[in-house]
Amino acid sequence: MVQAMALPRNEQGIETAIGVLKQRFGDRLQTGAAIREQHGHTTTWIDNQNPDAVVFPHSTEEVAEIVKTCAAHKVPVIPFGTGTSLEGHVNAPAGGISVDLMQMNKVLAVHASDLDCVVQPGVTREDLNTYLRDQGLFFPIDPGANASLGGMAATRASGTNAVRYGTMKDNILSLEAVMPDGQIIRTGHRAKKSSAGYDLTRLLIGAEGTLGIITEITLRLQGIPEAITSARCSFPTVDAACQAVMMTIQYGIPVARIELLDEMSVKAANAYSGLNLPETPLLLLEFHGSENGAKEQAETFGGIAEEFEGRDFAATSTSEERTKLWQARHDMYWASLQLRPGARGISTDVCVPISRLAECVGLTQKKAEELDLLAPIVGHVGDGNFHTLVLLDMDSPEEVANAEEFVDWLNELAISMDGTCTGEHGIGQGKRPYLIKELGAATGYMSAIKAALDPDNIMNPGKILD
Amino acid sequence: MVQAMALPRNEQGIETAIGVLKQRFGDRLQTGAAIREQHGHTTTWIDNQNPDAVVFPHSTEEVAEIVKTCAAHKVPVIPFGTGTSLEGHVNAPAGGISVDLMQMNKVLAVHASDLDCVVQPGVTREDLNTYLRDQGLFFPIDPGANASLGGMAATRASGTNAVRYGTMKDNILSLEAVMPDGQIIRTGHRAKKSSAGYDLTRLLIGAEGTLGIITEITLRLQGIPEAITSARCSFPTVDAACQAVMMTIQYGIPVARIELLDEMSVKAANAYSGLNLPETPLLLLEFHGSENGAKEQAETFGGIAEEFEGRDFAATSTSEERTKLWQARHDMYWASLQLRPGARGISTDVCVPISRLAECVGLTQKKAEELDLLAPIVGHVGDGNFHTLVLLDMDSPEEVANAEEFVDWLNELAISMDGTCTGEHGIGQGKRPYLIKELGAATGYMSAIKAALDPDNIMNPGKILD
Repeated sequence: MVQAMALPRNEQGIETAIGVLKQRFGDRLQTGAAIREQHGHTTTWIDNQNPDAVVFPHSTEEVAEIVKTCAAHKVPVIPFGTGTSLEGHVNAPAGGISVDLMQMNKVLAVHASDLDCVVQPGVTREDLNTYLRDQGLFFPIDPGANASLGGMAATRASGTNAVRYGTMKDNILSLEAVMPDGQIIRTGHRAKKSSAGYDLTRLLIGAEGTLGIITEITLRLQGIPEAITSARCSFPTVDAACQAVMMTIQYGIPVARIELLDEMSVKAANAYSGLNLPETPLLLLEFHGSENGAKEQAETFGGIAEEFEGRDFAATSTSEERTKLWQARHDMYWASLQLRPGARGISTDVCVPISRLAECVGLTQKKAEELDLLAPIVGHVGDGNFHTLVLLDMDSPEEVANAEEFVDWLNELAISMDGTCTGEHGIGQGKRPYLIKELGAATGYMSAIKAALDPDNIMNPGKILD
Repeated sequence: MVQAMALPRNEQGIETAIGVLKQRFGDRLQTGAAIREQHGHTTTWIDNQNPDAVVFPHSTEEVAEIVKTCAAHKVPVIPFGTGTSLEGHVNAPAGGISVDLMQMNKVLAVHASDLDCVVQPGVTREDLNTYLRDQGLFFPIDPGANASLGGMAATRASGTNAVRYGTMKDNILSLEAVMPDGQIIRTGHRAKKSSAGYDLTRLLIGAEGTLGIITEITLRLQGIPEAITSARCSFPTVDAACQAVMMTIQYGIPVARIELLDEMSVKAANAYSGLNLPETPLLLLEFHGSENGAKEQAETFGGIAEEFEGRDFAATSTSEERTKLWQARHDMYWASLQLRPGARGISTDVCVPISRLAECVGLTQKKAEELDLLAPIVGHVGDGNFHTLVLLDMDSPEEVANAEEFVDWLNELAISMDGTCTGEHGIGQGKRPYLIKELGAATGYMSAIKAALDPDNIMNPGKILD
């Protein structure tokens, strides 16, 4: 839909770098149209800007070689994981080399006693959890997509479990990275906490590959809880559901997941996943703890829900029912698309203080209606974070204009409510106008850091900052 | 004990800046010897390097004015809170202006529904908790000293509750800061999470005032738990105690505090706080939750302790007993000093993966014995973090040399165990040699960031980096 601005290309440099890298990597450097297209095209709604080549390194040293070659010839380097980012993060507005990290997919170490592990960036969260299961451990961050852990780190991802376990920034102990000059660094080791110098770990998390390429990640793990109880509860209004969420958080119930589906999303889930839920706003919850603890949490929540006219409260500890419910939640993107077959979905996310959540969601529904847009809402509402998926006929200029107005309006609304223009998707290309509205003068210091670490602007140019 | 290297002084600039600031701030700028001495001297063991003047701003705008004046004349600016830092953080090796932030001590807003609040940097953690108590809220980070929240942010402080609630980096939503050029920025707002741009919040947390002065802090709060249960348990050896800690963490018991006192520390506590604890290694614990939850946690821990020959396990929910126990823990610094009246205490901290904790503590005790040093150990062992307080006769060159060897050895041991040279004290002047040993090439990028944001090196020079 949106054409991101192209940046000037260094044709000579790109050609030379590809030549050098081809020599070195052989078939692991590809320049075919389909593969380049695939590495520009993601789930984003921003038009493709393909890289000139895609290279598949197997080791940190190979990544360093690639970056050094690109640095020598001032050629853009765009890190690539599963391509599930949403704001044009992997586009190549100045061309350059896409570095596909998915062949660096080893779990290098699991330290069960320390509840940590060390992985390469191409390990996906599902693969990691499969690997860990036998040891009674899991990695809690779940952004929905089966994303790579490197990509999740780079975009500061979070998702359904963040209300209890935090986001990627809270679950990474340290990183290894290749910096823009090709040097390999470690930002820390395996201590659970450290006050040693500037927090380069957190600086690289969420930098979207603009300050370096993450080549190794030391992650915090959790023990699989003794008991997991899921619950669902329908509410007469979004406002009532949000009030229940707010009180749940204030009570200090350590809820592991608390997800809102608005009426339209519930309809979509019923149709797509063969469910039979009341078609009113719904909360889906999960409680982790000891047998007694998880039960007690669910009961306390049940009491709160009742105060806000919650209906059809149902809790279950059986893994089958739980899986069905959460599968439906994870399939919401596809389910929502089916509300209007053939439409393109534009996903945007914002995050506001929880006291403003009900108002923000309500206004968002009203605005979509005014603009005649189909825009179901789902949200990680324990954090005040929600998404809308605007379902568009891309051939209708009017709809497209309305969708742009809607996204603009929503991002500014969230900022005006002391919130943020993105709780978890990141800035990429799509949210750059809002970053400056949200943080103003602070973005100047981000640019100064970028210029200091990457003076030739080769690392994922055109993302986050202009 | 240690004379930190003096840096070149800009005499002319300092004189001019003091003149300008005196004109502007009148009696709120002080140049008397005693006050300058007090603002260089802290609980550190590094010799005083006094600032040339101390100024007491009342607002962010005043801080900005001070920094702009200092920037114009290239004069060092050293932020000052309660002066409880331990590694020479507030020394002025190149002279300059100490900015005492303790008159900026207002709680600006409490958003109970959102579990957050906004404070000025001179609010201390105890003052904040007193202020919050009526609303059933608390701020969990407790480094022992009644430090200012600005100072705690600047040093990435943590302490006894970090095992459950995280460190300052996990409990700050956003900051307002005056940057080295005097510009005021906000790094974020009140959303619980954000993926909007580089994480300047986390970059300033732990930067020890070298990248800017924190002038406002938006903090995450917690509801006061329904039930708090404290417990203590004695163990035959440090190794047994550490094994019990490791299993507690692995079991996923959400322990709020788990503190180790070695044999020597228990002796000190008995003498100083009039207790009658068995003089063997001791764990002090606290469990937060519902009535049932806290009780269940304590019972589960009791079972674990038994496996490792824990004795005299005693849990209590009465606030009086609890207060007495934790007061004794908080008084450990003073209690330890009384083991050798007249001695100077040198506190150092390291943090290692918990699987290495028993070995690290054991080797530390052995090394102290070999060097004939009195060095009681206490630790936030749920995080693998512990402290030793070396008790020294500063007039004995041999003891001083042995203490230096000991501190060197311990920092290097922690680094060799995949740990860090400081879990919570920070680098300041004292730990600079270890930072580079721990992080190597990464420190070069820290220096590049420092140079980009503070090209004249006026913000707290001589700290963290050379």
